Amino acid sequence: MQVLVLNSGSSSIKFQLFSMPEERILCSGLIERIGFNDAIFKFNTQKDTIEFESSILNHKEGLRLLSKQLLDKDTGIIKSPEDISIVGHRVVHGGIHFKETTEITGLVKEKIKELASLAPLHNPANLEGIEVAEDIFSNAKQVAVFDTAFHQSIPEHAYKYAIPNIFLDEHHIRLYGFHGTSHKYVSEKAIDYLNKKESKIITIHLGNGCSMTAIKNGKSIDHSLGFSPVSGLIMGTRSGDIDPAIIFHLANKLNFSLDEINTLLQKKSGMLGLTGLSDLRDIQEQAAQGNKACQLALEMNVYRIKKYIGSYTAILNGLDAIVFTAGIGENSQLIRELVSKDLDFLGIHLDFEKNNTRSKGLHVISKEDSKVKILVIPTNEELEIAKQAVRLFKNQTSFI
Amino acid sequence: MQVLVLNSGSSSIKFQLFSMPEERILCSGLIERIGFNDAIFKFNTQKDTIEFESSILNHKEGLRLLSKQLLDKDTGIIKSPEDISIVGHRVVHGGIHFKETTEITGLVKEKIKELASLAPLHNPANLEGIEVAEDIFSNAKQVAVFDTAFHQSIPEHAYKYAIPNIFLDEHHIRLYGFHGTSHKYVSEKAIDYLNKKESKIITIHLGNGCSMTAIKNGKSIDHSLGFSPVSGLIMGTRSGDIDPAIIFHLANKLNFSLDEINTLLQKKSGMLGLTGLSDLRDIQEQAAQGNKACQLALEMNVYRIKKYIGSYTAILNGLDAIVFTAGIGENSQLIRELVSKDLDFLGIHLDFEKNNTRSKGLHVISKEDSKVKILVIPTNEELEIAKQAVRLFKNQTSFI
Repeated sequence: MQVLVLNSGSSSIKFQLFSMPEERILCSGLIERIGFNDAIFKFNTQKDTIEFESSILNHKEGLRLLSKQLLDKDTGIIKSPEDISIVGHRVVHGGIHFKETTEITGLVKEKIKELASLAPLHNPANLEGIEVAEDIFSNAKQVAVFDTAFHQSIPEHAYKYAIPNIFLDEHHIRLYGFHGTSHKYVSEKAIDYLNKKESKIITIHLGNGCSMTAIKNGKSIDHSLGFSPVSGLIMGTRSGDIDPAIIFHLANKLNFSLDEINTLLQKKSGMLGLTGLSDLRDIQEQAAQGNKACQLALEMNVYRIKKYIGSYTAILNGLDAIVFTAGIGENSQLIRELVSKDLDFLGIHLDFEKNNTRSKGLHVISKEDSKVKILVIPTNEELEIAKQAVRLFKNQTSFI
Repeated sequence: MQVLVLNSGSSSIKFQLFSMPEERILCSGLIERIGFNDAIFKFNTQKDTIEFESSILNHKEGLRLLSKQLLDKDTGIIKSPEDISIVGHRVVHGGIHFKETTEITGLVKEKIKELASLAPLHNPANLEGIEVAEDIFSNAKQVAVFDTAFHQSIPEHAYKYAIPNIFLDEHHIRLYGFHGTSHKYVSEKAIDYLNKKESKIITIHLGNGCSMTAIKNGKSIDHSLGFSPVSGLIMGTRSGDIDPAIIFHLANKLNFSLDEINTLLQKKSGMLGLTGLSDLRDIQEQAAQGNKACQLALEMNVYRIKKYIGSYTAILNGLDAIVFTAGIGENSQLIRELVSKDLDFLGIHLDFEKNNTRSKGLHVISKEDSKVKILVIPTNEELEIAKQAVRLFKNQTSFI
């Protein structure tokens, strides 16, 4: 069975085509700069790498091009759009409506649209991808996999903010959490590895966005991104946690507009604001060469992660494993080393040699006798979306 | 030697007169509703309790009344204003200038005035108290004890926010911390009790304002109140930590003005916003009677404290003691019980019986074999101010 996974952003579409259940990637790629005459189309199969510029003025044109490429008799993968059984869509915000992966209906689309007020950059683009895919792959089941769904198990005392009740009850202001697909994927791998019935895990997703989840027996019980993806850890360009009074001070004393402050916290803060650099590799290199701002930014970044590790260890009242994942988590030996340092009171002991060895799959980097296992697990949100989409229909035997 | 301690608010003055170094309270009291015709003057000595209404239109009139009362031949305490050797002033914000208790000079007053932009409600009132006291107790040494001073040992990676560097470098936006006098006072008592050369302590000040400090070898290394006193724990009317994006959402989607949001987070949130009640005793009572909102608010409050305990345990990489202090910390057995529950992974084991026994001074409420001592220590900010003021002059033997 072939499952196409689409991740539609405001001006891009990432895609992967899987053969399931064997989890084999048939092709993958990216359409960038949608809306422009010099949009870029990238398409990779095991044999071919195709890349070209083209005018792609909207998502529909982008997906039509993808469909055409998939069907191409020389470099294509499928014979007919009907070969694709399921299209799995990443949808960022599922609000409180969607606790699970869901087959897309008119009502589901309505809800995704409504939730645009909570995710104005993402949900409209996700919805556009869905509508175009329904049109082009009209025989396929369309499935939505929500970034927020995994965090719907977080209890009320953890997701509610200490502001008047009306804001939760009527305006749905609460912690939603994000990156759920990734946290779910790597935590399941970790639980498999631990092979324990009851488990206490902290997953640390460090990419351009960064977040951490406290996971008890496979369920998310707390998470560092909250109402929006700006809180929690220090990210590439986002501030993470700050004293909210800073916003009033910037507005009242330094005459910033609210929009300017919002942009500041989202796009000009984090590692970029502290160092002028946004790529962690550059920051690490500069730090190694003695750049004080880069050294401090790394220290701050790591310090925040350690604080969350402690915080989540307390609410879990124990810890079996911490899991590093995503671009930085999988690749930065330095960040992993600094995070793991001086946490032996919590039972965390890094094996430096293992940490410096590269490995493709799940990789244990803690010492043999470390009470807490330290794991590196490559995330794969696209595969998780495909798996969840397939699982949704697993009892419909006629379909499978 | 007699030391008068003044804590001047915008419309109130709290005072205590100590005989030092024996730490004996000669009198204490409060002037409330300064600026009104029906201001209230309260004055207590071991013998007398005096309370009356009077027109007290400004701090000067208030302190004149205090001076008159102190000198009263029947109910007074001193014979001449010159009997008072030192006036110790609580000053809320010392910015980065004041790392220690300081004798007040013209320059010091200038700095306190400058810092009003960071503490608009407190520093101007503190300064007014200083200026009037200089006039009335003109022979006394005037000393400023800053709430922020104890936290000046917090390292840069902990006090800096992940926003562009210019905001720290030029606009001094950073974590300052508050309640320092209280955290210092109780942590010193705890260290005396522990009698260890190296110590790792978390102090939990739960009053109307609430805050926690991570203290390593007697020095504050992190603190839950940041740039302002609104962040961190859930307080009587303050929200504590929230996702900063909530502010933009309230402004842009729900049409709140910035001032309204500021008031909301400072005065209408926290326990009040969650329950409609501001007194924790009422909330506990209602919760016991089955009020769901009160039960949830208590859970949220305690959950936040537990998260900070974990966080600070991680950065301390160990923990010798947690200390409860201030109104709620000293008196709420329930809060202490709920906070201590399910933290045995960190070595925290409460003795329920001890927790339910009242005691006047330092009170150990952990089990004998608890790795982490749980202490209740009554705070005494006024005495700490008096002690610090005296200590400042201890090498000036001619003066003492």
